[in-house]
Amino acid sequence: MSHLIAVDWGTSSLRGARLDAAGNVLEEKSAPLGILNVPNGDFAGVFASLFSDWMKPADSVCLISGMAGSRQGWVEAPYVACPAGPEELQRHLHWIEPGRIALVPGLSDEQGEVPDVMRGEEVQIFGAMRLAGLTDGLFVLPGTHSKWATVRGGRVTGFRTYMTGEFYGLLSQHSILARTLDAEAPLDEAMFLRGVARAGEGEGLLHNAFGARALALFGRLSPPQSTSYLSGLLIGEELRGQDLPAGREVIAIGAPALTVRYALALEQRGVRVRCFGAEATWAGVRAIQQ
Amino acid sequence: MSHLIAVDWGTSSLRGARLDAAGNVLEEKSAPLGILNVPNGDFAGVFASLFSDWMKPADSVCLISGMAGSRQGWVEAPYVACPAGPEELQRHLHWIEPGRIALVPGLSDEQGEVPDVMRGEEVQIFGAMRLAGLTDGLFVLPGTHSKWATVRGGRVTGFRTYMTGEFYGLLSQHSILARTLDAEAPLDEAMFLRGVARAGEGEGLLHNAFGARALALFGRLSPPQSTSYLSGLLIGEELRGQDLPAGREVIAIGAPALTVRYALALEQRGVRVRCFGAEATWAGVRAIQQ
Repeated sequence: MSHLIAVDWGTSSLRGARLDAAGNVLEEKSAPLGILNVPNGDFAGVFASLFSDWMKPADSVCLISGMAGSRQGWVEAPYVACPAGPEELQRHLHWIEPGRIALVPGLSDEQGEVPDVMRGEEVQIFGAMRLAGLTDGLFVLPGTHSKWATVRGGRVTGFRTYMTGEFYGLLSQHSILARTLDAEAPLDEAMFLRGVARAGEGEGLLHNAFGARALALFGRLSPPQSTSYLSGLLIGEELRGQDLPAGREVIAIGAPALTVRYALALEQRGVRVRCFGAEATWAGVRAIQQ
Repeated sequence: MSHLIAVDWGTSSLRGARLDAAGNVLEEKSAPLGILNVPNGDFAGVFASLFSDWMKPADSVCLISGMAGSRQGWVEAPYVACPAGPEELQRHLHWIEPGRIALVPGLSDEQGEVPDVMRGEEVQIFGAMRLAGLTDGLFVLPGTHSKWATVRGGRVTGFRTYMTGEFYGLLSQHSILARTLDAEAPLDEAMFLRGVARAGEGEGLLHNAFGARALALFGRLSPPQSTSYLSGLLIGEELRGQDLPAGREVIAIGAPALTVRYALALEQRGVRVRCFGAEATWAGVRAIQQ
């Protein structure tokens, strides 16, 4: 197979890479054409406008991961229930153009009373597994909806979602805290870690978030400090739910601006962190194709 | 003292009552003129427009509790640190017109690493104490920012705030959950209690809130059911932080639409609940005046 096109079509952005037979990235493209920004629902048209030149060779194959396979996307590709690995995803590829263009299904975890779902992160996990040379581990994918996934024998055995990024946006833009934050401020590591530590005391987010307000009211946190403190409270709250004995390793996948925060919080607890970025997506698409 | 005017001037509303010497309510008034809706910051003008007739008798005294004493209010009345009872509040009344009109200061709890504050709820607590005939107890005041206060020997010894109501508003209006909620739906008690129970399992709000989304996605919760479930998740999360052995009594003070939810959640755990409404405010103002 000489031409693999890997596409990550999310809620707010569309990114693609052309890979050679060895999996090297030959070229990348991106556009702010997430599934919520596709004019008139013309997914085929948007796809063609970005990738038709890459698809010209007769043996080109394109696999698309992310929200493009959701109910609001191009076509709904039903979730594959975990435990699942690259083989299960390959078997359930949803072909839009047979042998040429397929949607990668997302994963569901229906083992508990409350189900959980992911779309796109599963591909990044399988890619990071390859890049790290692991078949077992604990993975975190920070973001609007952070995912924590456990991998055993090369398959995701279970995962949980945390609305950490979305809560940060809600609190910093729409809540009473917005008045005492400075959203543009750079990360203040000490204040961030103070928030992480506070969350670890177990009082819960509903109380700790008001604490950020009270600290500002008493002049004990400046607006830039409050912003980092709130970020620490939220990420610390997310960590509170994880099984993280010291010495454990966590693989973090995502934008460096986010993974650096998780690494700071985790390393303070004696947990080692390895970080991966966009390259995990391309390696994951290749793992599913093979 | 023959004429006591009790006023509760909050963020979004202004309410007042005229009491006789025995503390009976002779008349009540209210207006949507919370401190954020006072034209040109003319607090004196708004006060006069509602209450000048009640203030005509030379011996009329008016005590105003709530956000009117905050930095954004009429005049800032500095917090009184707890432990504090009605005597401490009386001693720190902030007189606007000596002997005639005073602001009741709020309470602060500065005993921990992170301070906490309330304005207006302290008056309701002292009123409910009187009405219930208690000098010791655990009090909850549900709302945008719920308060849990411990009272010993007639004084508030400590309290904690939870942004429960504000989080409910943020999630139901601005988050991804908004798409699968029906904000107008009446309370579904079974779904509400299912949310309370889920929160009690200790997974944390960041994860459980996404669970509400996933349950809707899988068709396991209808929009009206989701709304009650989310309310249960939030109130359950708030309860998770309280010391509530079965058989304990909690005094709930607030609007019946809210206190009924707390009573449902608490009674399921074997905790007895007594509820009070606006009458607690008027009784509290009287307790401070005496």
